[in-house]
Amino acid sequence: MIFYSDNAAPASPEILAALTAVNQGHARAYGADEWTTRLDEALSAFFDAPVRAFAVATGTAANSLGLATVCPPYGAIYAHEDAHIVTDEAGAPEFFSAGARMVTLPGEHGRLDAATLAAVLEANPVSVHTVQPAALSLTQLSELGTVYRPQQIRALSDVAHRHQMRVHMDGARLANAIVHLDCHPADITWRAGVDVLSFGATKNGALAAEALVFFDHALVRDFELRRKRAGHLISKSRYVSAQLLAYLDHDLWRANARHANRLAARIAAAAKTRLLHPVEGNELFLQLGAAECARLRAAGFAFYDWGPVQEGLARFVVSWSQAESDVDALCAALSG
Amino acid sequence: MIFYSDNAAPASPEILAALTAVNQGHARAYGADEWTTRLDEALSAFFDAPVRAFAVATGTAANSLGLATVCPPYGAIYAHEDAHIVTDEAGAPEFFSAGARMVTLPGEHGRLDAATLAAVLEANPVSVHTVQPAALSLTQLSELGTVYRPQQIRALSDVAHRHQMRVHMDGARLANAIVHLDCHPADITWRAGVDVLSFGATKNGALAAEALVFFDHALVRDFELRRKRAGHLISKSRYVSAQLLAYLDHDLWRANARHANRLAARIAAAAKTRLLHPVEGNELFLQLGAAECARLRAAGFAFYDWGPVQEGLARFVVSWSQAESDVDALCAALSG
Amino acid sequence: MIFYSDNAAPASPEILAALTAVNQGHARAYGADEWTTRLDEALSAFFDAPVRAFAVATGTAANSLGLATVCPPYGAIYAHEDAHIVTDEAGAPEFFSAGARMVTLPGEHGRLDAATLAAVLEANPVSVHTVQPAALSLTQLSELGTVYRPQQIRALSDVAHRHQMRVHMDGARLANAIVHLDCHPADITWRAGVDVLSFGATKNGALAAEALVFFDHALVRDFELRRKRAGHLISKSRYVSAQLLAYLDHDLWRANARHANRLAARIAAAAKTRLLHPVEGNELFLQLGAAECARLRAAGFAFYDWGPVQEGLARFVVSWSQAESDVDALCAALSG
Amino acid sequence: MIFYSDNAAPASPEILAALTAVNQGHARAYGADEWTTRLDEALSAFFDAPVRAFAVATGTAANSLGLATVCPPYGAIYAHEDAHIVTDEAGAPEFFSAGARMVTLPGEHGRLDAATLAAVLEANPVSVHTVQPAALSLTQLSELGTVYRPQQIRALSDVAHRHQMRVHMDGARLANAIVHLDCHPADITWRAGVDVLSFGATKNGALAAEALVFFDHALVRDFELRRKRAGHLISKSRYVSAQLLAYLDHDLWRANARHANRLAARIAAAAKTRLLHPVEGNELFLQLGAAECARLRAAGFAFYDWGPVQEGLARFVVSWSQAESDVDALCAALSG
Repeated sequence: MIFYSDNAAPASPEILAALTAVNQGHARAYGADEWTTRLDEALSAFFDAPVRAFAVATGTAANSLGLATVCPPYGAIYAHEDAHIVTDEAGAPEFFSAGARMVTLPGEHGRLDAATLAAVLEANPVSVHTVQPAALSLTQLSELGTVYRPQQIRALSDVAHRHQMRVHMDGARLANAIVHLDCHPADITWRAGVDVLSFGATKNGALAAEALVFFDHALVRDFELRRKRAGHLISKSRYVSAQLLAYLDHDLWRANARHANRLAARIAAAAKTRLLHPVEGNELFLQLGAAECARLRAAGFAFYDWGPVQEGLARFVVSWSQAESDVDALCAALSG
Repeated sequence: MIFYSDNAAPASPEILAALTAVNQGHARAYGADEWTTRLDEALSAFFDAPVRAFAVATGTAANSLGLATVCPPYGAIYAHEDAHIVTDEAGAPEFFSAGARMVTLPGEHGRLDAATLAAVLEANPVSVHTVQPAALSLTQLSELGTVYRPQQIRALSDVAHRHQMRVHMDGARLANAIVHLDCHPADITWRAGVDVLSFGATKNGALAAEALVFFDHALVRDFELRRKRAGHLISKSRYVSAQLLAYLDHDLWRANARHANRLAARIAAAAKTRLLHPVEGNELFLQLGAAECARLRAAGFAFYDWGPVQEGLARFVVSWSQAESDVDALCAALSG
Repeated sequence: MIFYSDNAAPASPEILAALTAVNQGHARAYGADEWTTRLDEALSAFFDAPVRAFAVATGTAANSLGLATVCPPYGAIYAHEDAHIVTDEAGAPEFFSAGARMVTLPGEHGRLDAATLAAVLEANPVSVHTVQPAALSLTQLSELGTVYRPQQIRALSDVAHRHQMRVHMDGARLANAIVHLDCHPADITWRAGVDVLSFGATKNGALAAEALVFFDHALVRDFELRRKRAGHLISKSRYVSAQLLAYLDHDLWRANARHANRLAARIAAAAKTRLLHPVEGNELFLQLGAAECARLRAAGFAFYDWGPVQEGLARFVVSWSQAESDVDALCAALSG
Repeated sequence: MIFYSDNAAPASPEILAALTAVNQGHARAYGADEWTTRLDEALSAFFDAPVRAFAVATGTAANSLGLATVCPPYGAIYAHEDAHIVTDEAGAPEFFSAGARMVTLPGEHGRLDAATLAAVLEANPVSVHTVQPAALSLTQLSELGTVYRPQQIRALSDVAHRHQMRVHMDGARLANAIVHLDCHPADITWRAGVDVLSFGATKNGALAAEALVFFDHALVRDFELRRKRAGHLISKSRYVSAQLLAYLDHDLWRANARHANRLAARIAAAAKTRLLHPVEGNELFLQLGAAECARLRAAGFAFYDWGPVQEGLARFVVSWSQAESDVDALCAALSG
């Protein structure tokens, strides 16, 4: 019973089927195929705004390319100290931006708040001797599984824009956030001030497909050159675009995220006071103790330690494909 | 009848089937799955040498990551002036290497020769004021569809190694070269002095899968950090690794390349004196004249101009999935 | 009465005289002159160790070039959150290293301590997903005017070396620290584990001259290429080398630093409880209140606010050329 | 008798005297001193146009910073294959631009011509797969000692601007060119289409001082951040600015360049048919043969081989401080 990560899940049958469906005859390469050329329309409909959308294979690529289009080499990127771009992408934002500074901030339950951001920006006046604040990156779901509310994003975006910074969102698990809030995708993106979005599909059912979504079209030309230069323009582009189209089609994204969120909520109910953070998506962080962790592993549950093993903190991630029986068993084990 | 590029071809059914086959249950992410962990063994068998092999999604990524592991920022990469890394990758080698210099050399029919390389290296003494020759990159098939013989590669590698340079091979169409030479894969790679190889599968039947193959294992640690940092470590790695395994399995690579090479040879025979370069793989470069190009297009043939349209030079690429009837028609049209 | 910075001071007459002395006839450029070729010997004598030493024009160049030789692009540089390389060099370490991560740590009175460093390193296990700890940078004097003791540096270096990190020291005000400790230059550099040192002369009497000093000679080749590539190899090198030689000659560095430290100590005695940090060199940080700051400025004292003006924190830096009468006046004003 | 390089010359007494003159009391650092703040005015007067001018210590810094402000990472810089930025700056343009491509072109006697540039640009259509032509860099004097005429520069600039490229001039020896043409400085810079200029003083009498001159002020903000980040903002800026002011004052630049050009012309007259390139400044390239080179060296003349020693090509550079007697002797030796 694997709760390592939603990256450990397989792909949705609908998405695999889409690969087979597009595997017919010749098609123009490098984005000139009929599926890729439909991405803008499909994601514009999804977001209810005229977006430009581009497929890439990994979330790290989406995040870093998005950030590099809004942050010059001498810029600074503000992010939560636990954000994936800070802790798990091996310095990719620095690489793509040619050396921007990552400025990390604390924030309860993985979320930044506007007052902290404003205070830090105001306490650090900018001059030719300093890096230049250029981008704010928000993670939705946050790295600790919590969800930013529309008004929280709005407040953060307002601070950022007031300081001439652009707002990037790492939406590797955006679907889980939308489902949790039961909101329109626009509410937590462009309507709340987001300029560029990494829209994840891989964790929620694709094989390898993320879309970089630009609400500000002025960024696109620079992006396209950076993408090619970084080896992220996929030659047989139909295969990555087909995944994204299938992900949006018939709201597959929603069904998959609902399943994962619902099962995570069941586990949360069983875990009760052992929760370290509110469970608002498909991730759970539990204070179990080392002995309990060992007991669960012995019982067949696979999950990551969240920190040193002796601290007994555990992360469980529920995937779109998680068996209900896995969760039955886990709830029983936690309640036992 | 599409002769644009082998990138326009679909994926082999065997490779699509492999995706379905691995789409079962959970699997460790980021290369810890059972398929990815078999890559080293599979490619070591293929090359008859103990290699380390890593999957990435694009040829540009493979080339640039490979070059960055052997070329410092102040290094120079020597390549043919028509090489894909020079003309078609938007400066990717410079990006990944943090600013290496691309030094381009002429060479008949797309191939470098050892004497030219040696002469250039000897005529340009190295000092603290110059970039430092660090890498030689060879393209096999060359960008003009020709094949380097083992002894040509050996002679070039010897020059490079004598100048403390490492040898990279862009093998986007390596299968076509092996089939043409009817040699062992080792003969044109490590046995001829190649240190790191971009082993292409995408053009010859995969959806999006290339392997970066290290014959020198000392380069691997640096590579792995660069790959992650560049967003080219694929989370659900089983899907890219499965493509490579299927590509090697039952010599699918060979069957696909044979088909393409055989059809290209048929076209070459029909094109006769209009060939600009020997046809040794699946690419043809023809001097047709603008009028003939227009006539062929009107007759339903799609292909790229190779240079300004008024010059009437054309490139035809035959893919693994090219219909025999496409070639029948093209041969007839060229002979007509 | 200017207490802005030691950068506001003029150059020592001895150093200007050295420029005139070397301004005779032709001399080989780019470091082949007789003065530059004496730098290794002069600094080896100074440090009582066989060093390789290279002149550059600015401290930012020295720091960043030194760090780039010990930190790969995917590396992390650990430094105090108030360090000059963090706050005042506009992202230079990221630029020279091609995108290393700056990891900032707190520490009392501007100094890091070994326990904090060790705890942070141990709490953040390294993997292919993370940046790789590569360098520790210590500032001596610290950015808040305090001095690291030899055993503090030793303890920090030991932690760093245990984690395969190299130790860089930003010695923009190293002379002031040596004078304060009354120690041998070796005691707070190589004997305490420092691998590469930015040895400052500009603030303490030169026009524009810093030496990058390598205790580990293996780093030199890479450095020399990076220096040239960064535009920091000065063509008429005799003029920068002559400054450094004059700075070392007859212990000019010591006389200048003694003067500044002694005057700073006089001010510290007058400031008493208003000191924010121990005064161990030529810098003072005072909690004056906004009204007192205004009063002092009206009385003719020029100095920087250290933070927002309304907080009333002030930095005074005493230079090698500070008039005793400036300090008399300031002491009187502070005691008044 | 040293003819190695004008970098081997000492500094003009007037420039050394200026250093002494400004060495009085405290002055604001980092460009806020009274001398630095006069640079714009002084160079605006010199160029008869409202320029922004910034001092740096080396020509490599000036060139690369200038190019980085007009060339994005995915850009291409077009330059003569013998240009200093191509052959002698260790890849600095690639470093500062974060990986731009250097595209080198041939051209008689070290000069590019507009037709060649236009033909190359037109033959290489731009797409997302290619680097993007962004900058043209011209060297005046060229690396082979020749001078671009105003109309040549105009024609080249027109081609560049038509392709949305900016024009940079490496004016390390601009004074020698102005003297040769007896023109106004504007005629070969902004009036001929130059956007940004490296204005050299070091080779012609300064210790270490170059000005980066912006005719297009929109580039300045980006430049200032790049300069600081590259360690090229000099703290005690008065000393570099004073050199530039003294260089302009009383037309010292002109007197120095006249002297050097006049002596070079005398040598050219003696060398007659052995000249490889027209002598239009202070550099001579002679076809002497290896035996003659050896003979001259035995007679006390120091100069560089220009290529392999056995080819017997020699470069002589005459400096502002060259003794007339050196030239008498050389002329006699060449005529002998």
